[in-house]
Amino acid sequence: PPVSLCPLNTGAATEQDMLCIFGTGDLGRSLGQRLLQTGYRVVYGSRRPQSCGLLPPGTQVHHEAAAQSARLVFICIHRENYDFLETLATQLKGKVLVDVSNNLKKNLYPEANAEYLQRLIPGAQVVKGFNTLSAWALQNGPSDANRQVYLCGNSAEAKQAVADVATKLGFTVLDRGSLSAARELEDFPLQLFPEWRLPMQLTIGLTAFFFIYVVIRDVIYAYVKDNKDISFRIMVSLANKVFPTVSLVMLSLCYLPGVIAAFLQLYRGTKYKRFPDWLDRWMLCRKQLGLVALALASLHVLYTLIIPISKHVLFFVYCDSKIRENKTSPFDTTMAWRTDSYYSMGALGFGLYLLLGITSLPSVSNMLSWREFSFIQSKLGYLTLFVCTFHTYLYGWDMFLRPSYYKWYTLPNYMLSLVVPSAVLVLKLLLLLPCVDRTLTRIRQGWERSDPEHESKKSLLTSGYHTTDTNAL
Amino acid sequence: PPVSLCPLNTGAATEQDMLCIFGTGDLGRSLGQRLLQTGYRVVYGSRRPQSCGLLPPGTQVHHEAAAQSARLVFICIHRENYDFLETLATQLKGKVLVDVSNNLKKNLYPEANAEYLQRLIPGAQVVKGFNTLSAWALQNGPSDANRQVYLCGNSAEAKQAVADVATKLGFTVLDRGSLSAARELEDFPLQLFPEWRLPMQLTIGLTAFFFIYVVIRDVIYAYVKDNKDISFRIMVSLANKVFPTVSLVMLSLCYLPGVIAAFLQLYRGTKYKRFPDWLDRWMLCRKQLGLVALALASLHVLYTLIIPISKHVLFFVYCDSKIRENKTSPFDTTMAWRTDSYYSMGALGFGLYLLLGITSLPSVSNMLSWREFSFIQSKLGYLTLFVCTFHTYLYGWDMFLRPSYYKWYTLPNYMLSLVVPSAVLVLKLLLLLPCVDRTLTRIRQGWERSDPEHESKKSLLTSGYHTTDTNAL
Amino acid sequence: PPVSLCPLNTGAATEQDMLCIFGTGDLGRSLGQRLLQTGYRVVYGSRRPQSCGLLPPGTQVHHEAAAQSARLVFICIHRENYDFLETLATQLKGKVLVDVSNNLKKNLYPEANAEYLQRLIPGAQVVKGFNTLSAWALQNGPSDANRQVYLCGNSAEAKQAVADVATKLGFTVLDRGSLSAARELEDFPLQLFPEWRLPMQLTIGLTAFFFIYVVIRDVIYAYVKDNKDISFRIMVSLANKVFPTVSLVMLSLCYLPGVIAAFLQLYRGTKYKRFPDWLDRWMLCRKQLGLVALALASLHVLYTLIIPISKHVLFFVYCDSKIRENKTSPFDTTMAWRTDSYYSMGALGFGLYLLLGITSLPSVSNMLSWREFSFIQSKLGYLTLFVCTFHTYLYGWDMFLRPSYYKWYTLPNYMLSLVVPSAVLVLKLLLLLPCVDRTLTRIRQGWERSDPEHESKKSLLTSGYHTTDTNAL
Repeated sequence: PPVSLCPLNTGAATEQDMLCIFGTGDLGRSLGQRLLQTGYRVVYGSRRPQSCGLLPPGTQVHHEAAAQSARLVFICIHRENYDFLETLATQLKGKVLVDVSNNLKKNLYPEANAEYLQRLIPGAQVVKGFNTLSAWALQNGPSDANRQVYLCGNSAEAKQAVADVATKLGFTVLDRGSLSAARELEDFPLQLFPEWRLPMQLTIGLTAFFFIYVVIRDVIYAYVKDNKDISFRIMVSLANKVFPTVSLVMLSLCYLPGVIAAFLQLYRGTKYKRFPDWLDRWMLCRKQLGLVALALASLHVLYTLIIPISKHVLFFVYCDSKIRENKTSPFDTTMAWRTDSYYSMGALGFGLYLLLGITSLPSVSNMLSWREFSFIQSKLGYLTLFVCTFHTYLYGWDMFLRPSYYKWYTLPNYMLSLVVPSAVLVLKLLLLLPCVDRTLTRIRQGWERSDPEHESKKSLLTSGYHTTDTNAL
Repeated sequence: PPVSLCPLNTGAATEQDMLCIFGTGDLGRSLGQRLLQTGYRVVYGSRRPQSCGLLPPGTQVHHEAAAQSARLVFICIHRENYDFLETLATQLKGKVLVDVSNNLKKNLYPEANAEYLQRLIPGAQVVKGFNTLSAWALQNGPSDANRQVYLCGNSAEAKQAVADVATKLGFTVLDRGSLSAARELEDFPLQLFPEWRLPMQLTIGLTAFFFIYVVIRDVIYAYVKDNKDISFRIMVSLANKVFPTVSLVMLSLCYLPGVIAAFLQLYRGTKYKRFPDWLDRWMLCRKQLGLVALALASLHVLYTLIIPISKHVLFFVYCDSKIRENKTSPFDTTMAWRTDSYYSMGALGFGLYLLLGITSLPSVSNMLSWREFSFIQSKLGYLTLFVCTFHTYLYGWDMFLRPSYYKWYTLPNYMLSLVVPSAVLVLKLLLLLPCVDRTLTRIRQGWERSDPEHESKKSLLTSGYHTTDTNAL
Repeated sequence: PPVSLCPLNTGAATEQDMLCIFGTGDLGRSLGQRLLQTGYRVVYGSRRPQSCGLLPPGTQVHHEAAAQSARLVFICIHRENYDFLETLATQLKGKVLVDVSNNLKKNLYPEANAEYLQRLIPGAQVVKGFNTLSAWALQNGPSDANRQVYLCGNSAEAKQAVADVATKLGFTVLDRGSLSAARELEDFPLQLFPEWRLPMQLTIGLTAFFFIYVVIRDVIYAYVKDNKDISFRIMVSLANKVFPTVSLVMLSLCYLPGVIAAFLQLYRGTKYKRFPDWLDRWMLCRKQLGLVALALASLHVLYTLIIPISKHVLFFVYCDSKIRENKTSPFDTTMAWRTDSYYSMGALGFGLYLLLGITSLPSVSNMLSWREFSFIQSKLGYLTLFVCTFHTYLYGWDMFLRPSYYKWYTLPNYMLSLVVPSAVLVLKLLLLLPCVDRTLTRIRQGWERSDPEHESKKSLLTSGYHTTDTNAL
């Protein structure tokens, strides 16, 4: 905006640079120290101003005087002690109160600390903020996970005033709306990867299942049938069976909800009905599912590349009678094609996997247009799924024909891992059929299939939209 | 800036929080829903206000009334229907119109939608914006590729007003200047990696060429001469010949334009002449060239590490008569040095490659000073090129002495891949010669070689600069 | 904030869009060109306005006139020539002067250029800024390492005015406080990874030490004792002994300062005493130590995976008499468990290492809450250290029992590498003992152990805090 330089050189600005802090605990002192360094003047509100030696001399005054000297008051005290603030209601009228407090657990109180404060002192403008920072960050300025200050409050001017202070301290400000978002902000420092919970539970569940499955089929089977102890294989061989299996299932679970949603829209003939809750939740954790799948795929690659280093593997290879027989058997070109394709697909699939992972880094995805992002995550995503599934089919090859692989009448784990990805790919192919694709595109552009039963109600709802606003985007 | 808290507590603020939306299509409704959630009051302009059931009741009024009730009007209708807005010119006078529209293709119309809108209603302040977001992002707030709102417009105040709304909705605002940038913004959602087009075409071209080259030299040659079918080698062995070859060429193409530009400056004796267009375009896609080279190098590493896993490779190794002969032949220390250096250089080169890749991640390069960034991309870049070229020379070793490698009188592909990088390294070495380096540095600091022919003209141009402003940076 | 649209449509805004540039060097002209493109009007101050042909015609006027025509003046001249500005003090009074200058070396002058400028013209508002950008970025707009403009100055309005210009040019503005930060900003373009200096010196020192150590123990020992030249092993085998050794030591050095700090707090019984300087410095470069450790670990993985590719290694393996003897020896399950666990731990440890590396990418750590970040860097960090240390112990196994490994009475390098990590893990375990952990938690929450000798002084310092402000956070 054109620069309004009018108030330049006026001394009036300095009065507003006085900030008040209530509470001389760690947080209050750290904040005060930093504010002083940045050039603000700071005054602490206290019950017995003369007694504390940890603060710069002369900065402590009685609560009443402190509140009156500044327009911005940082409330750095525990919620349990808020009630004494009620007695200062007249002095705090019209002031901006920054509620910096956090609780030790979620849902301790019926309302958020900041909302409680606002209720106590209705004449003040309460802004929730700074509570997501560590005391260390407040004292030393932004670093790593402490760059962003979240604010919320009902008064835009009050928020702007607090935002200016935060910006001056070097933080990036994110406005989270009205004071009703305070609970969310107060829960934020307590949370530990909430959006990773479901994907991690799924990962642990699937990994445990497949691990027990292959231990039974391989280790226990060998012990029971041949009385051989091959339990040492758990560390590399079996782990390397579990990782790719779970990874492939997770990757397909990443694309399954999108396919389900498309079929649901086709079945309903409209996009204006909400998806069921489970589908919504599922779609929101697709990114996490994909990243876990990538991590497991990386471990699979590492474990696979480890195999030939292990001396006893080379020893086995050498001693393997089949190999020695091969010496005289003619070289099988088909088998060579299969093996090499299998490895090649694996490498390509992993490369694509990595590309998907890199483009979901926040700083990379920020630079992409929406079309570019969906191109990578959708087109390249399905390509990755296809390449990885194909890699697994090549691994299996004609294994399904040999009865010796169905130990104890169970399926090899690779077959189990192929169920979901194959289903997703087949369903996706169906969606790409021209007639289906055309209908889906129309539905996504707002078209609705008229349903004889609800005809009368629908026409009422949508005709207005379609007839009067055909010009709308 | 010092906080101006004067207008605090005035009720006047609320009137300005009323926003108007024209168009009740998907985009209009998504935007309206989100604005309501954020605390704004929203009114929809409509021809027949009573008829649409998809909007909150009471939010629809006639266009005229809607336009008058708010200072900000979001235009969420198709460009084809803009003409009816002309009838509202009086009501829209002095308002801020946010043009959210996009077209289905580039260059459909001679002028941008927003410019057309401005021409229709000259009394309003048109701001182009929000059009790069998906409807999903408008409804649910920022996520992944939908964090940034690009704005452009001729009025700074109007842009600020729109920017405030966008910030409140949680987006990051990027001001792209005056309304003449509208076409760029309207093309943005249609684009698909424009800066990757040239590098990708080059990659595909080079890969196809080298692939056919090695297929002819290896597979077809073996078939014709020895009647052996080794076509299966295409999947791993040949791919692993093509990837490193193309990667090395791409990496050197990444540094070639810089060397050419330096020689051009030396030849011209000045830095004040523009480079030819092809050189400019080439220099602008160096980052993409480097990233493609890195991707191919990663595939090369993966494919190389796969080789020993493949059982039939181990089998070949074992059966290889040369190896069996080696058993009796004396151990060759020179050869061991060469092989180990070859692998070591490969691993080091790939490590450096990765480092270059990581530092070109936006969030990492943002944290570097300009000097640090150019240190890594230039010094470390040339070191990477040198190490990778050296790795390839070690691969070749004395191969060029043996006639059996020149099948059908063609050069092995590794020799072809060495041409460009060797040239780049030699030219760079020339530029590092003290006398050349000194001249180049002087030219880059603004010095110009006087040319007898143009002496008179030049002196007129530059003497003023040199004599009057020797104090300039 | 509620939008103040009042001054819309007023022509007054245009006068303020005139910007003045002093100095017609590269930087001045680049900046001017970019300002013109963005829609500003630009005037150059010059001694002899008519003579320079490199600037748009009519943009050059005498310094006095130029200074008077604009409120913002960019000072793009060398510090050595600042003195002539003193003669313009009256014209520059009340103006915002943007000091864009840099020096060629650190500490050339007793005060920062901007502070010197402010002293010369006390009536102006000096803002330091734009000096961290390259001339290329000034001319072409933000790219890679040139996105951020750092500002500092004593007048908030002046800074805001400059910030607006920078934002319009497309840059991100970071306010670094008052003009006393000018020296820091002027040193910024000269710095080259200052925070990496200590970690890099340590890395080079440790790498050199261990390299010489293993060369003596392996290569020279073999030459002296058996007269065998195995010097070629330096390239892969020995490098692959040095990398993991240094990596593990670096990783443990990354966690050692935290443990030392905890014991120091326990010993002192308070957290309110400053740590010694060396500990502070050490703690500030933990991230760099960790990243170097990760880079070396990656090289270790690459070099390990290379081993089986190398033909002469396979040859050795094959010829190795021990292996041939193994054929008849019974298969050792314990040894298989050990080897496979060793590889498995290595792969897992590297996976965790990578995860730590990814979460320290700025864009990823920005998205984490403080609790999430410390969970990953602390909990997962110690897990990584444990897994990697365990991996090394498995590598050693019973090696310490065999005298042949203590060549020339020296310890194998892997044993040396285990000293620091083992110490860190044992100390960390001590800290996790319930009684120790409880005391430490109390200290970190502000509790202080009373010390009979200093009782009187302490009570004075802290009692006020504890008695009057028990309600403080």
